[in-house]
Parts: sequence; C-alpha cells; structure tokens
Amino acid sequence: MVLRIGVIGTGAIGQDHIHRITHSLTGGEIVAVTDVNSEQAHAVVERESLQAKVYDNGHDLIQADEVDATIVTSWGPTHEEFVLASIAAGKPVFCEKPLATTAEGCKRIVEAEMEYGKQLVQVGFMRRYDKGYRTLKQAVDNNKVGEPLMLHCAHRAPSVTNFSGDMAITDSFVHEIDVLRWLIQDDYVSTQVIQPRRTNLAEEGLQDPIIILLETKKGIRIDTEIFVNCQYGYDIQCQVVGETGIANLPEPPSLQMRSQAKLSTDILVNWKERFIEAYDVELQEWINSTVNGEVHGPSAWDGYVVAVTTDASIEAKQTGKIVPIEMPEQPAFYQDAKAEYTV
Amino acid sequence: MVLRIGVIGTGAIGQDHIHRITHSLTGGEIVAVTDVNSEQAHAVVERESLQAKVYDNGHDLIQADEVDATIVTSWGPTHEEFVLASIAAGKPVFCEKPLATTAEGCKRIVEAEMEYGKQLVQVGFMRRYDKGYRTLKQAVDNNKVGEPLMLHCAHRAPSVTNFSGDMAITDSFVHEIDVLRWLIQDDYVSTQVIQPRRTNLAEEGLQDPIIILLETKKGIRIDTEIFVNCQYGYDIQCQVVGETGIANLPEPPSLQMRSQAKLSTDILVNWKERFIEAYDVELQEWINSTVNGEVHGPSAWDGYVVAVTTDASIEAKQTGKIVPIEMPEQPAFYQDAKAEYTV
Amino acid sequence: MVLRIGVIGTGAIGQDHIHRITHSLTGGEIVAVTDVNSEQAHAVVERESLQAKVYDNGHDLIQADEVDATIVTSWGPTHEEFVLASIAAGKPVFCEKPLATTAEGCKRIVEAEMEYGKQLVQVGFMRRYDKGYRTLKQAVDNNKVGEPLMLHCAHRAPSVTNFSGDMAITDSFVHEIDVLRWLIQDDYVSTQVIQPRRTNLAEEGLQDPIIILLETKKGIRIDTEIFVNCQYGYDIQCQVVGETGIANLPEPPSLQMRSQAKLSTDILVNWKERFIEAYDVELQEWINSTVNGEVHGPSAWDGYVVAVTTDASIEAKQTGKIVPIEMPEQPAFYQDAKAEYTV
Amino acid sequence: MVLRIGVIGTGAIGQDHIHRITHSLTGGEIVAVTDVNSEQAHAVVERESLQAKVYDNGHDLIQADEVDATIVTSWGPTHEEFVLASIAAGKPVFCEKPLATTAEGCKRIVEAEMEYGKQLVQVGFMRRYDKGYRTLKQAVDNNKVGEPLMLHCAHRAPSVTNFSGDMAITDSFVHEIDVLRWLIQDDYVSTQVIQPRRTNLAEEGLQDPIIILLETKKGIRIDTEIFVNCQYGYDIQCQVVGETGIANLPEPPSLQMRSQAKLSTDILVNWKERFIEAYDVELQEWINSTVNGEVHGPSAWDGYVVAVTTDASIEAKQTGKIVPIEMPEQPAFYQDAKAEYTV
Ligand SMILES: [Mg+2]
Ligand SMILES: [Mg+2]
Ligand SMILES: [Mg+2]
Ligand SMILES: [Mg+2]
Repeated sequence: MVLRIGVIGTGAIGQDHIHRITHSLTGGEIVAVTDVNSEQAHAVVERESLQAKVYDNGHDLIQADEVDATIVTSWGPTHEEFVLASIAAGKPVFCEKPLATTAEGCKRIVEAEMEYGKQLVQVGFMRRYDKGYRTLKQAVDNNKVGEPLMLHCAHRAPSVTNFSGDMAITDSFVHEIDVLRWLIQDDYVSTQVIQPRRTNLAEEGLQDPIIILLETKKGIRIDTEIFVNCQYGYDIQCQVVGETGIANLPEPPSLQMRSQAKLSTDILVNWKERFIEAYDVELQEWINSTVNGEVHGPSAWDGYVVAVTTDASIEAKQTGKIVPIEMPEQPAFYQDAKAEYTV
Repeated sequence: MVLRIGVIGTGAIGQDHIHRITHSLTGGEIVAVTDVNSEQAHAVVERESLQAKVYDNGHDLIQADEVDATIVTSWGPTHEEFVLASIAAGKPVFCEKPLATTAEGCKRIVEAEMEYGKQLVQVGFMRRYDKGYRTLKQAVDNNKVGEPLMLHCAHRAPSVTNFSGDMAITDSFVHEIDVLRWLIQDDYVSTQVIQPRRTNLAEEGLQDPIIILLETKKGIRIDTEIFVNCQYGYDIQCQVVGETGIANLPEPPSLQMRSQAKLSTDILVNWKERFIEAYDVELQEWINSTVNGEVHGPSAWDGYVVAVTTDASIEAKQTGKIVPIEMPEQPAFYQDAKAEYTV
Repeated sequence: MVLRIGVIGTGAIGQDHIHRITHSLTGGEIVAVTDVNSEQAHAVVERESLQAKVYDNGHDLIQADEVDATIVTSWGPTHEEFVLASIAAGKPVFCEKPLATTAEGCKRIVEAEMEYGKQLVQVGFMRRYDKGYRTLKQAVDNNKVGEPLMLHCAHRAPSVTNFSGDMAITDSFVHEIDVLRWLIQDDYVSTQVIQPRRTNLAEEGLQDPIIILLETKKGIRIDTEIFVNCQYGYDIQCQVVGETGIANLPEPPSLQMRSQAKLSTDILVNWKERFIEAYDVELQEWINSTVNGEVHGPSAWDGYVVAVTTDASIEAKQTGKIVPIEMPEQPAFYQDAKAEYTV
Repeated sequence: MVLRIGVIGTGAIGQDHIHRITHSLTGGEIVAVTDVNSEQAHAVVERESLQAKVYDNGHDLIQADEVDATIVTSWGPTHEEFVLASIAAGKPVFCEKPLATTAEGCKRIVEAEMEYGKQLVQVGFMRRYDKGYRTLKQAVDNNKVGEPLMLHCAHRAPSVTNFSGDMAITDSFVHEIDVLRWLIQDDYVSTQVIQPRRTNLAEEGLQDPIIILLETKKGIRIDTEIFVNCQYGYDIQCQVVGETGIANLPEPPSLQMRSQAKLSTDILVNWKERFIEAYDVELQEWINSTVNGEVHGPSAWDGYVVAVTTDASIEAKQTGKIVPIEMPEQPAFYQDAKAEYTV
C-alpha cells in the first residue's frame, strides 16, 4: 500500500521532503501540493515530474479524497491551523517545527487530538532519527554508562546573519530540548541562561554564545553551549555522564589525514549535511508507521513540551533568573506511544 | 519507469538483495525468481509478499518477457553460464562475485559482451559504493595527498571456519584487488605473498595471516595484510601515502566512551554490518543506471582483471616468488564507462 | 651554587619532594628536616642517605644558618606559621597547598611579604608545570583560538573515601581555581554551585558530582564538573572555547590498542601518575628561580585568591546562590612576577 | 658518588650531552673534553662553565686519572678507535651511533670487550629510552596483543638535503633495526628492499620512499616505510600485530584543536623534539648503571647486529633480492645484560 501524501508549503524544506519521498524513499507518493505562491507549487510539480494536483489552499488539500496524510511545511504561523484541520479531517499529519508558534497553540492541538481520540500528529524533530543520537540512546538504555547524571552539550554553527537573540533558543536550542528529553526519558523542571563574554565576530547587538542550564525531574543537569558564530564549523556535541562511564555522540565519519603538520579529520561546516540522512530516516519511518495507523515519532505532546521549555528559557535569558518549567502530567493518551527503531 | 528484475539464486545474498529492492530501495521490482531449490524460491516469494513468478531454471527466467534485467546470486560455478545467457538475451545483469570461477571464464564473458556491442554486465564488488572508500577516492582525486606512492592496507576478521589457504585470496583479498585499482586508477604488474609467523588461533593447517604485495604500472606499492583470525574484530584499513600527505579510510562512526579506564570506540565484529549501506547504494545505483541503459559499476573487464590478479597471487603464495600479472590492454570498449557518484 | 633546603614535614608529599630533589633534580640539596614525628624524620634521612640534620621543630630549622630556603609540607593548619617565620627570616619558602587554612591567614602572609619588601613565597600548585596545561596556555597566548569566551572543565577521580562535601572544593576544585586564572590571565567575580543527580556509588551522604560555574572580570564563563566517584578513571579535562576555535588539554599519551572489539587508549586511574612529571618540573623551576632570588611560580597573592574563591564557592554550595567573589585589586608588588617557562 | 666523564667530540651532539649532563641530569660531571677543533672544545667549556680540562686528543683524555668514563661523540670513522682505547683502559664508554663504520669494526669491539671480560660499551640508540616505545614493549611483554606476528612501521621526515640512497638505511632505518629487535626480543634472518614510485619532491636522483621487509627467526614479518621527503611532518609509527590484538606506538601528546573545519592534533616537524626526552633518560640511565658497574643499554653486540643488518639491507636495495642476514649465535657474555626500566 502506498501512502498518498499532500504537502502544504512548497518552500525549501517542503521541496526537500517532496524530493526525498519521490526519489529516495519507498511507500509514499506526493499526490497533492499547495503553496501561498501557487506558481512555485506548479513549478515543483513540474520539476519533480509529480502526478500531483495543485490545490488553492491547505484546507481544500486536506479535505481531498485522494490525500491520505499531510505534510505541513508552510510558514510557521500557519502550522497550527493546518494541523488542527488535519486532525478534524482524521488525517495523519507530519508538521515541521514549530508545531505552533505559542505554547497555547500547541496545547490546543494536544486537546484537539485527545478529543479526536487517536494520535495523528508527528512533529519534525529529526535528530531522534540521527544514527548517532540513536546509538547514544541505545548505549544509555543498555546501561553502558550507568544512570545518567549530567549532559554536556554544544550546538555550534560557523556564523549566522539576521539572527535575533531569541533565535538561539527558538531555532537552535529547540532541537536539544526535544532530543535530550527523548534521550534520557525525563522531563525538565527548570532553566537558566548564562551569557558569557560575547564574541566580536557576531553581528552587532547579538549576544553569542549563550549557555543554557536545564534541570530534570530526576535531577539530571544539562548544560548546552549555543554558539552560532563559532567560525570553525557546524558542530553538535552531546556527552552523557553516567554513574559508571561517559558516552559521546559520535563525530561524523571522516578521513583521517596527515598533512601539513596536522593529524586531522574534517568538521562539517554545513548544518544540512549533518542531518541529511536523519531527514530520510525520519520521513521513511513516518510513512511506514502512518501506513500502520500509528505515530512513533515526536508527538503533539512533545511539541507542546518544547514550546513551554522554549518560553521558559526565553524568560530565563531576559531575567537572568532560574525559571521553573511547569507542565501538567503527561496524559496517558501519549504515554503508550513509543518510538521503535533499530540503529 | 520501474525496472522489472529476475533473481537467479535465492540463497542468503539473493534474499538480501530481494529484500532491499522490495523494502528499502526505489525503482526496482522483483518479478521473477528461480533457485535449484524450488521450494526455497517459493518460500522467499511468500515471505517477501512478492508479485513474482517462480521459474524452473535461470534460462527460462532470463528469456521471460516481463524480466528487464537479471541478478545472478546463484552458486559461483553457475555464474558464467547465466551471465552469458543474459548477454545473449540482451538483458542487463548484475552478477555477484565471482564473475566466473576462472580467468578464462571471465574472458569469455568480456568477449561475448564486446561482440554484443554494449555493456550489460556489472559485478558485485560493493566496496566501491562504501561511503568511506568514496570519500577516500574523492580525496585522492582532489589531490589532497598529492600523487599516491604507497598503499598500506589490512583486511581482518575475528575468525573463520572451513577456510582454505586460497580463500584468503579468492574470498577476502579479492575485494582489495577490485577496490584499490578503482581507487588509484592504475593496473597491477606483479604480486608477491609473504607468510608471516602463523597465529595459533587459526584452524589447523591454515596459514594466517598473509601479506600480499602488489606493484602497479605507475610503480605504486601496495601491501595488504590479510588476517582472518585476528580475534579482535572485523577491521578494514586502507592508507594512501601520497607525495604531500596521507589519507586513511574512515573508521566506522561509533560512540566515544570513557569507561573502565579506557577511552574507546567500538570496532565492528560482523562483516555484514561494515558494508550493509554499501550494498544498498550498490543496488540502488545499479537500478538507476540500468534504467538509463548504462553500466557505471564494476564491469566484466574489472571482473576479468580481478580473476587474473587472483590467479597470480595464488601462484605467488605457492611459489614464494614475485609473479608478474600479465593482462592485455584494456579495450576502448570499457574505457568510457566511468563510475559517477557523489559522496 | 647548590640551594640548601630545609624540609618541614616528612609525610608523604614531603618524602616525595625530598626524594626527587635528591635523586632526580639538580641544583638542590636537602640539608635539614623536621617533623612532629621525629622518628619518621630520622628514618627518611637514613633511607634517602641524606647529609641532613634533623631539627626539633620548624622554627629552629628556619633559623639554621645552613638552610637557604624551606619547603613546608607539614599538616595544613601549620602552614601559615612556618611561612610567616620563613618570611621573617628572609628565606624563600615553597609551601604546599593550602598556603593557609583561611583567607585571613593568606592575607596575613601577603601583608607580611609585602612588608618584607621582596617575594619569597611560592605555593605548590603543580598544574601550572604540567606540560599539557603549558601547551594549552601557549596556544591561548598565541591566539590559536582567538579571545577565550568559555572554559568547559572536568575533574574526575575513580572513587574517594572519607571525603566531605567541602573537599570537592577545597581539595579538588582548588587546582582548577589556580590553574584556570593563570591560563586565561583573568580574575573571578562570581561563583555558583549546581548539585546534579547524585551518584549512588558515592559514600552515603556525599553529594557527588557537583558543577561549579565561575564568571571572570572579562565575562568568561567557566563550568567545571567535579566528580570524584566517576568509577572509570582519573580524568582531567579542560576545553577553551575562543572566538575562532577550541583547544583541549591533551590526553596523556597512551598506546592505541585494537583489542576485543574496541579501539582504545588508556585512561589513568591514579592521580599521582597524572601530574608526576609536573611535580618534578615545579620543584626544579623553584630551585632554579630561587637560586636567582626570584619567585616565578604561584605567589602568596595567588594563594590568597584561591582561598577567597574557595570560601565563596563553599558558600555558593551551601546557599544555592550566585556568590560574588570580592578581592582587592592585585597590588603592583605582585604584578611583575611573571612565570617564565618553555614548553 | 658522581661519575666523572670525559667527552671526545664537542660537535652538536657532544654539546647536547654536555649540556644535559651539566644542567638537567644528576650524578654525572663533565671533567674532561677534547675535539679535533680545540678552539671549539675550549668554547664549550667556557659557555657551559665547566670545571673541565681540555685534552689534546681522545687517547690522552681516556688515560686521564680523573676520567671515570667516556662519551664518544666524535666523527663516525673515529668511533672504533676510541671505543677500543676505552676498553683497553678498562673504562666504561658511551658511543654514539655508529659503533663503528663497518661490521668488521663492530666485531673487533665485541671481541675486545669479551677479551677484557666485562661489558663496558653502550651504544647511543636512544629509542629504547623513549617513553612510547617502552610502553609498547611493556604491552608486548605483558601479552596485551598475544604473540607478535607482524610489525608495520613508518619512519618519515619532512625533507632532507645532501642525502644519499644508502642513508635511508644507515641513518634512518638504523634506529628501527635496533629498537624493533629489542621490542620483540628476536633476531633478523632476511631483508628485502622495495622501491615504490618515487616522490617528485625529493632531491634529484634520490629514491624516496623505500620499504624494507625484515623477517625474524620466529617468522615475525616487519615492514618499514622510510620516507624522508614526506613533507607533512616527522612521524614515527610502529604497530605490533599480535595473535589477539594490535598496539600502536603512542602519538606524541598534543592539544586537540577544533579550528577551520578541522579537528586536529599537531604532528611534529622536528626530529629532535620527538626524542628529546629519550636522550635525557638515556644518559641518566647510563650514568646510573655505570656508577653501579653495569651496562643496561644497547651493547656492543647490539651495535654489531645493527651493522650486519644495515649491510645486508644495502645489498638488498642494490640487488632487489631477499638477502639473508647471517650472524653467529649471541655469546652468553651478552645474554645476561638485561635492560631494566620502568615506564
Ligand atoms: Mg526538523
Ligand atoms: Mg559484493
Ligand atoms: Mg601541589
Ligand atoms: Mg642516538
């Protein structure tokens, strides 16, 4: 059985997903697309040689009979609306981050989904599909380091432009927020933001780097350096310190070179290269589980937790205080949904 | 357009290829299978839920109208026969190694293909599709180490059973023979085999390890340690020493652990894990190029060169001498076929 | 000219220093010793075949004509008294940490030394003499990473016994306090202590690990994990994140092994092994500079800074607050004293 | 007791040894020097502030009453003469390599020493004193890799001038000849030299690199790449492949840097830096053992073995043949002399 997919939003990431579903993955077919820029939608259909209808708007696409499931890759502020419409139509939906632009929006989606009575929503946090993070989670789950006590993380990019102070949290740190609680199966209770000496190589007015300290229910402490003008490369680090040992996220594989008085391996400079395989796995697993009527990936609840943690971290940055992260208990509705994967 | 594939031989590797084409890859469909064990062929069709006809024998399968291309994964001694039949039928064929069990057999295939007038044959040397080897080739091609002068290689496995002395060459070293000449775009002119102190941990009577020394037309010297009872892991090493630097085949990615007084990464123990992704890429690229009427992978000529080099190395092992490797000039027919790939 | 040295306190560290000065280093001679346990002092003289007089007490030793300089390796609470006496006698003194058990005690030493008018005191912070830290400092000084913005450090030991909560600061972290400000040539302005999830493998009642956050005048942020029951080894990490790159303290050299499915190097388990060469360099440089009438190593002022920072960190641990570190400006008297070294 | 040393030859290496004995080591004193360039000898005495008499020639120095032991660091062709004179005088002698310029010369020294009846001669092969090689030997001795079967080695330098083809053997490989047989406690039985594609970056007429293959009595096979114009650094590699695992000579410690899209450590470019500590240890241990009337380091016999192996390798290079290495059995006289050391 082939999953017939409608894509809302044919910008960069939408085009990427259309391309991989059509040319690299198996079991899915793009049958419908729409975009506020209708011309672009048509161009994508042509370029990718899709047998797909171009709809006037997301709502018509969602209602279309030939559409089994939707992918929401439109402008962030429209996500909530289309996800809610998909739920109302009883159709599975894969929504790129953010699930909604506010925690309240996320909460509305959670409530709609629970009322509908069946999980339909998956949020596009691709790091859970990265082979490295999966290997790390497997090591943690298999007790290779004992009980986790601390995580030391870094999220570095060579440089950014048109980047506001909050984006270090909403665009960069948001990935750590999701993947780290999945990694250690724990929830956050507080957040603190430290503002170190500012690099002179950032755009004027941007505080870069920042360090974010999270505390979990079990007392695990997580420090994450976000440094988006680090110059040297795109570099994602995650170290789990447990009772008996330490595990580090693998470095991307690279030739070991001996050249010019250096023994070296390459560091990536392009973020896309770092997680390109994770996107493939993410969408393939979404297709596979959706065909089975299940959601295995990041849920609407996960999207909601991320939104609340993001908001608290922004407040922590503004105030310099340790800010509590208050969330209701995770509903039983979401507790049975388990990610299943093999490394 | 979907490539309709017939598979001759549904043993272990045949089943693997059927599974990956059906469940992981895109653009190919298994429409016909056959095996000397007809029951097994039927069982595979059932288990994989194939829409495929089970043929009585390879020749009927090759002739079948619905078969666009064949995959030969039967018992080695039958390869030549089915490859020749595929050529006679004008159908593209992917043949697992060996192309034929003798150099003469390979030569007959080369001659048949040249007479037919178009390349149809690809041999299953999967290392060319390994991301590590491709990255290494890219570095060499892009002059990252200058002109290559020496290669230091190792091919190690934890242990083997029912392994004869020649198998270190015909089953293990055969992969280096193919991939190294592809890597440096050069041809071999002599081979020498050294028999070091024997490990006590090999089966009685087996000389293990051996070291094979190859010399190329350009004078590049290649030493390869073949050690199939090394105990510690499955470990493929390849170091290119060039005029200005050195590049090493990447280690497979792995968590870096700090545990029990060791800073460590894992070494694989299972050969299949090492090249599992390469097999996927190999078959996907074969499907893609076949649909375009082209052969980009290891050709019949490459299979022939491997057979001649293998024979010379066996003689070198038996005699202790430096044995010349004599090959006719590569026909122009094969010279235009270039592998195209991106890392 | 040979420096004639009197040693006050012939316990473990005192014996080590006596042994290295006598058998490994050059330019110094132990001519006098004393210990509260007079028998032990005599035994050490005999065992090391010293031409040294055993004195009844530290004060007599300090006054002795044949003593050019003193080493204070007695019980911590007696350090202040003997250092002050050495200053009063105008004799150079090398004092193991702590310089005094209180910040006030350290301050009295600073004042006495300034009143005397010439630096005489060196404190035994050996990490400044570790080849790794020196190489790291050289990289920072030579702008290899640009301006330092953050330091990520760890101080881990396999396990401890009879260890109180404050000792993680007074005995372990104290080394980072000294060496990090030397490394970045900056002063601390605040300290915060985080208490992560407690390991079950520590002695009952001991909070382990802790994380200490220091802020410097320039805004550099330092996080140090102190984890003294980490099980896996004695492991000192220091990472300097600068505007253009990152430098890590070298791992101690070790064989790279391929064995039992691991590619590994050793991690030390014994702290003494980690800094054994640093002690040799420290004492050799102390002898050399003392003969020249100079102090190049950690000064009394440095000892005072460490004491104030230690006190503030203990308060931070007890209160959970960010505690300011208030120090008077470093007197000009101490500013000219520069460590001179070559890596 | 201080060892009173006379130094014959105050060129570069002689000056180095004088400096280290005087300023870094303990237990030795330079009391006499001589050089063909008498002015230079006087200048060294002055510069190092030695209490040393300048002798007209080596023979007078050897005879001098105040000289307990000699160091021969004169021009190579004079080594044999001064070593024989030291033996005749019954005085311990440390001779830089070569022990003599011919195997026959070495043999004469061996015979003179045996006739004298007591070991007096140590040859300056400093690699045995390198911490890395010692750690490697300890691993081999402690069965960390099982029985050694193969060694893969490399000896690389950035570039050389005024270098003849034989010097790759007599000046470079000579160090491997000595240290590898010490490492595996075995003797060589044959040698073969391979001449790979020549680098264009060597001086005209110089074949660089070469690969030398040694076989031992136990059947261990050793391949060593000598590449003295490798451009990228001074790099000494030694890998021991044993029945159960593999150990590699440690890389010299270095900062791990993240900079400019590279994760790197430094490779040395200067050979002197690589073994500078080994020289200190070598001379200190020579002083210590000499004071005890013993020789623990490379013996005259070892120097003789090196000369024979060097000659055979030069013949192998010239002829392209596998050349047997024929040595008489090691006399019992030399068998009890064991190196004692701690890592
Ligand atoms: Mg995403
Ligand atoms: Mg294959
Ligand atoms: Mg100390
Ligand atoms: Mg030497």
